[in-house]
Amino acid sequence: MYKAFDESLTDTAGQIEKHFERVLSSFDQVPVTQAMAYAVRGGKKLRGFLVIEGARLHGINVERAIWPAMAAEAIHTYSLIHDDLPCMDDDSLRRGQPTIHVKWDEATAVLAGDALQTLAFEMVARPEVGSADVRADLGLSLARASGAGGMVYGQALDIAAETESLSATVESINHLQKHKTGALIQWSAEAGARLAGEDPSRLGAYSHALGLAFQIADDILDVEGDIDTVGKAVGKDADLGKATFVSLLGLKGARQRARDLVAEACDALSSYGKDAECLRQAAHFVILRQF
Amino acid sequence: MYKAFDESLTDTAGQIEKHFERVLSSFDQVPVTQAMAYAVRGGKKLRGFLVIEGARLHGINVERAIWPAMAAEAIHTYSLIHDDLPCMDDDSLRRGQPTIHVKWDEATAVLAGDALQTLAFEMVARPEVGSADVRADLGLSLARASGAGGMVYGQALDIAAETESLSATVESINHLQKHKTGALIQWSAEAGARLAGEDPSRLGAYSHALGLAFQIADDILDVEGDIDTVGKAVGKDADLGKATFVSLLGLKGARQRARDLVAEACDALSSYGKDAECLRQAAHFVILRQF
Repeated sequence: MYKAFDESLTDTAGQIEKHFERVLSSFDQVPVTQAMAYAVRGGKKLRGFLVIEGARLHGINVERAIWPAMAAEAIHTYSLIHDDLPCMDDDSLRRGQPTIHVKWDEATAVLAGDALQTLAFEMVARPEVGSADVRADLGLSLARASGAGGMVYGQALDIAAETESLSATVESINHLQKHKTGALIQWSAEAGARLAGEDPSRLGAYSHALGLAFQIADDILDVEGDIDTVGKAVGKDADLGKATFVSLLGLKGARQRARDLVAEACDALSSYGKDAECLRQAAHFVILRQF
Repeated sequence: MYKAFDESLTDTAGQIEKHFERVLSSFDQVPVTQAMAYAVRGGKKLRGFLVIEGARLHGINVERAIWPAMAAEAIHTYSLIHDDLPCMDDDSLRRGQPTIHVKWDEATAVLAGDALQTLAFEMVARPEVGSADVRADLGLSLARASGAGGMVYGQALDIAAETESLSATVESINHLQKHKTGALIQWSAEAGARLAGEDPSRLGAYSHALGLAFQIADDILDVEGDIDTVGKAVGKDADLGKATFVSLLGLKGARQRARDLVAEACDALSSYGKDAECLRQAAHFVILRQF
């Protein structure tokens, strides 16, 4: 059932990596730019896939959509690099490979993350993306999704949560994840409508539910997965005494919540008809990764 | 002679700080957003001043120019926060105050820097800035000036230079500083012309010379200044055995080079006539800070 989706995801990830190679090879090769190229390799590139699929639904071809797809992946990758730093989550493994500060050093990791964020804003502003209206809209919405009112705000809440697990509720975790993971996933799914200058609200509703389902799946993976399939350390949340959807809802409750959210995500796409099949499969896929 | 300029610089810095307060108070108040507000306070805000003065020369009022002025200062401030981290320059004092990782912690410093970079790209994309063409142009040029081909590239070279001082030449330091300090100063000075949709090349030539003069002055200050007037640790370059304009040209030679560059900067503004007096004074000011 998911063969078409799986192939499409793999194909998209390959295209995005190829474009990153081209763009990053245009910079002078120093450890920071080498680390950037290293960091964007691997991974499923779900955010980039959402951009390209959302764009296709709105009649926008991949030659234009590839740029905001790279922007979403550049923001995501920068946040992983900085999250992995010793002063943050202190992870030595990412996508099955040594993290940047392990392979190079911390300074290189800080700068490579910084420059990947900058690259994201260059990607959405490039003339190839479309009209100036579209590019300014993508830049503004990406900044809002990823900054102190979006992704970074979620990360800040996450740091605070490590010391406040007793007061955590499903609502507070929802609030945290809506920003930490959800905001960029939502921007990615909406970008296609923005590229077409059309209303992104249906894709917004889809990705809002998808983002939460994704995070619940991630929490389940942290409990049930093993290091070989996940490609990063597992069981860290429990070790840190961190409240997660699993610790608050139980494994069974978390799975049910994720299934409900996937149904909700698919419903939001009903008016797109059959064209949205690939995005529906994507929603099922995010929770199928482990159950 | 510099009274008008001094007052103008102070006035502009005040306006920029007031706008930062307003924008940053709109975010949920957590340590990261509090650290962002703390970090943008103080300093001369030379980059913001260059934006606003360059804009005035092109008939653009401060209500529009304040946004790219904040963007330049947000990028500058984020780079200082990350530069001060223990894994980079390991500074505990900035603008006479404890650095973010000292006052809060390293994770807060990483995230506050990250979110200030994002904020910069939000500032240039805001509808108040002007037409979509102008906003997309400012976003693209800012990304190119501050990323892996601009400021961060300069920082990467700077890290490498700490271990390669024997091979340093005036040309290699020029190349390093043109990116590390120069690119953002140049973007700041050019932003006014971009706001007006006009050719930024005269302001570009001015700021190219200004940026180098500024860095030479900074190197001299590191040798001659004291911690009270500079507001940060001094003598660090020599302690690190780092090649600077002073170590390569001598104090006298460095001073002469800075004076020549100021003259060059002022010449580039000749076609603006008397209107550019404030920018000419700014050029003199950057080297008058200490001699």
